[in-house]
Amino acid sequence: MRATFMYEAGDVRVQDISDPVIEQPTDAIVRVVRSCVCGSDLHPYHTMSAADGPVPMGHEFLGTVEEVGSEVSALRRGDLVVAPFAFADNTCEFCRAGLHTSCPNGGFFAAGIGGAQAEAVRVPQAQGTLVKLPGDVDEKLLPSLLTLADVYGTGYHAAHQARVKPGDSVTVIGDGAVGLLAVLSAKQLGAERIILMGRHKSRTDLGRYFGATDVVAERGEQGIAKVRDLTGGRGTRAVLEAVGHLPAYEMAVGTVRPGGVISRVGVPQYDDAPVGFGSLFGPNVTLTGGPAPVRAYIEQLLPDVLNGTVDPGRVFDRTVTLEQTPEGYRAMDQREALKVLVTP
Amino acid sequence: MRATFMYEAGDVRVQDISDPVIEQPTDAIVRVVRSCVCGSDLHPYHTMSAADGPVPMGHEFLGTVEEVGSEVSALRRGDLVVAPFAFADNTCEFCRAGLHTSCPNGGFFAAGIGGAQAEAVRVPQAQGTLVKLPGDVDEKLLPSLLTLADVYGTGYHAAHQARVKPGDSVTVIGDGAVGLLAVLSAKQLGAERIILMGRHKSRTDLGRYFGATDVVAERGEQGIAKVRDLTGGRGTRAVLEAVGHLPAYEMAVGTVRPGGVISRVGVPQYDDAPVGFGSLFGPNVTLTGGPAPVRAYIEQLLPDVLNGTVDPGRVFDRTVTLEQTPEGYRAMDQREALKVLVTP
Repeated sequence: MRATFMYEAGDVRVQDISDPVIEQPTDAIVRVVRSCVCGSDLHPYHTMSAADGPVPMGHEFLGTVEEVGSEVSALRRGDLVVAPFAFADNTCEFCRAGLHTSCPNGGFFAAGIGGAQAEAVRVPQAQGTLVKLPGDVDEKLLPSLLTLADVYGTGYHAAHQARVKPGDSVTVIGDGAVGLLAVLSAKQLGAERIILMGRHKSRTDLGRYFGATDVVAERGEQGIAKVRDLTGGRGTRAVLEAVGHLPAYEMAVGTVRPGGVISRVGVPQYDDAPVGFGSLFGPNVTLTGGPAPVRAYIEQLLPDVLNGTVDPGRVFDRTVTLEQTPEGYRAMDQREALKVLVTP
Repeated sequence: MRATFMYEAGDVRVQDISDPVIEQPTDAIVRVVRSCVCGSDLHPYHTMSAADGPVPMGHEFLGTVEEVGSEVSALRRGDLVVAPFAFADNTCEFCRAGLHTSCPNGGFFAAGIGGAQAEAVRVPQAQGTLVKLPGDVDEKLLPSLLTLADVYGTGYHAAHQARVKPGDSVTVIGDGAVGLLAVLSAKQLGAERIILMGRHKSRTDLGRYFGATDVVAERGEQGIAKVRDLTGGRGTRAVLEAVGHLPAYEMAVGTVRPGGVISRVGVPQYDDAPVGFGSLFGPNVTLTGGPAPVRAYIEQLLPDVLNGTVDPGRVFDRTVTLEQTPEGYRAMDQREALKVLVTP
């Protein structure tokens, strides 16, 4: 089959590899119907050395079940399924607590498993991981359903961990797909004021469509000052950080109100950051977040996607074929595209 | 009157100053009945330069109201009161949210206000700050009532911010007065497993009395390994950090379970700390805490102190007179005393 690999920064190739096969009785083989390129795929696209490659790419997909292992009883050939970006058994104490990303039997679609920017994927822990969708779903809904695999659930995780509630004030840092869907999620949870920090007008316009009440294009100290102006000098109760770079963390510290919460879902590209008296401690600010256990949210978010109440699939603004995946990376890297959908 | 000043590291003096007077209509003058030396007073005792001194010391006290300003209607001369270490108006949006330490009209007993290791104190925002106690209270209860001014409320804040609940597992880092009262607070909130990390047997024995189920004397990697051994390799859901030095933070990161909470009340003696994928983000660990808004907890904690259900005053293991306050600092610094009570 054909599958996408990254060889080093800037070098993405689609190549022939052998078809995936059932390796464990808990596996399933899923034929990919839709996959996509993630903002987090751009981190290795910028920095990966040739010594670390090639690695299989892609961790978001919808597909149809082709084959299941002997211990997978709830799925059968032909089922349309969505897969969260982290597989998990969905039965251990961490999964039961809604923290599927810490499942001891879980992991990520990566080297040793295979990527989703491919014709087919082997899914470990398939019974716990895959969520069955209605078989007769309108093809127009596929992009929105695909966001349940990562970006929607990740944006939702940011808002959920910040305990966003009706009437709340929220700042969202970052106008990528996750930031925009953090806006949508904050709106769904009842936030009254949603300030989106981003500087790409087409994206922030989509953010307004999803529920942002204000847009701040400035960054750094100027951006912080603008948010403080908008909030009577106080900042917002919640700040959802969907970038992952240290300046975004610093903007979060600058825009959160005393007693508030910074919720991070942008994968941190730093190890140490300010947490002392002058940043988090003095104003009793809480720092939370992490890789989203999106499996925990799929059943909850699914109905409003199926009935069209929300359309998170609007984050996809370009479609490529699997063979064109390298072009998808290039377009996202150049910010020509917000998020690229990949069809077989 | 006589009052205590720190001139520089290691140099504490009791000297004559003029009596405090009402400066604002919201002030009260309180004659000190009991005060004490705080673990946080030892930070300047170790590091303060002569250029920064002299500064008035002490921020925990019980006293009797001597005089009130014209806007203080709820207190009168002779009332026995307890003062939280941070004064606050108790009416603003932050106070109403239980975050008195962020009150825009609030502040700390320090230079410009005066300290509590003195015969009397001027209390700003007296109506919002001071909590009246029964006038006929048994003198034996005074030490426990005094802990409501800081260390009990601070230990309680650690457990409260970590949302400790019945059945919970908790690690407490630090066997100082705050750590021990964090143990007591976790116990009050229903924690089932309370692991106290500390290496002074007389203190950890008191910790066991307050509710610790396990004591770990080891520090660093060894201490982390011991806590993990005790918890099936997972760590505890909550970690209450009552020290403030970076190695204590690192122990917190090492002993918290995925999805858990690190709640800090030890004043951080560092600015930056690990918060990246390998420390907080990857396991979805929440970092919370800050200076305790003890005013928010006094009414709630008071009944069990008055009826003897809890006796947090056991943290005082030495009593000195005001004139002997410098000896109190020395004894705490040398760890001869856990916490020193100061009588007039």
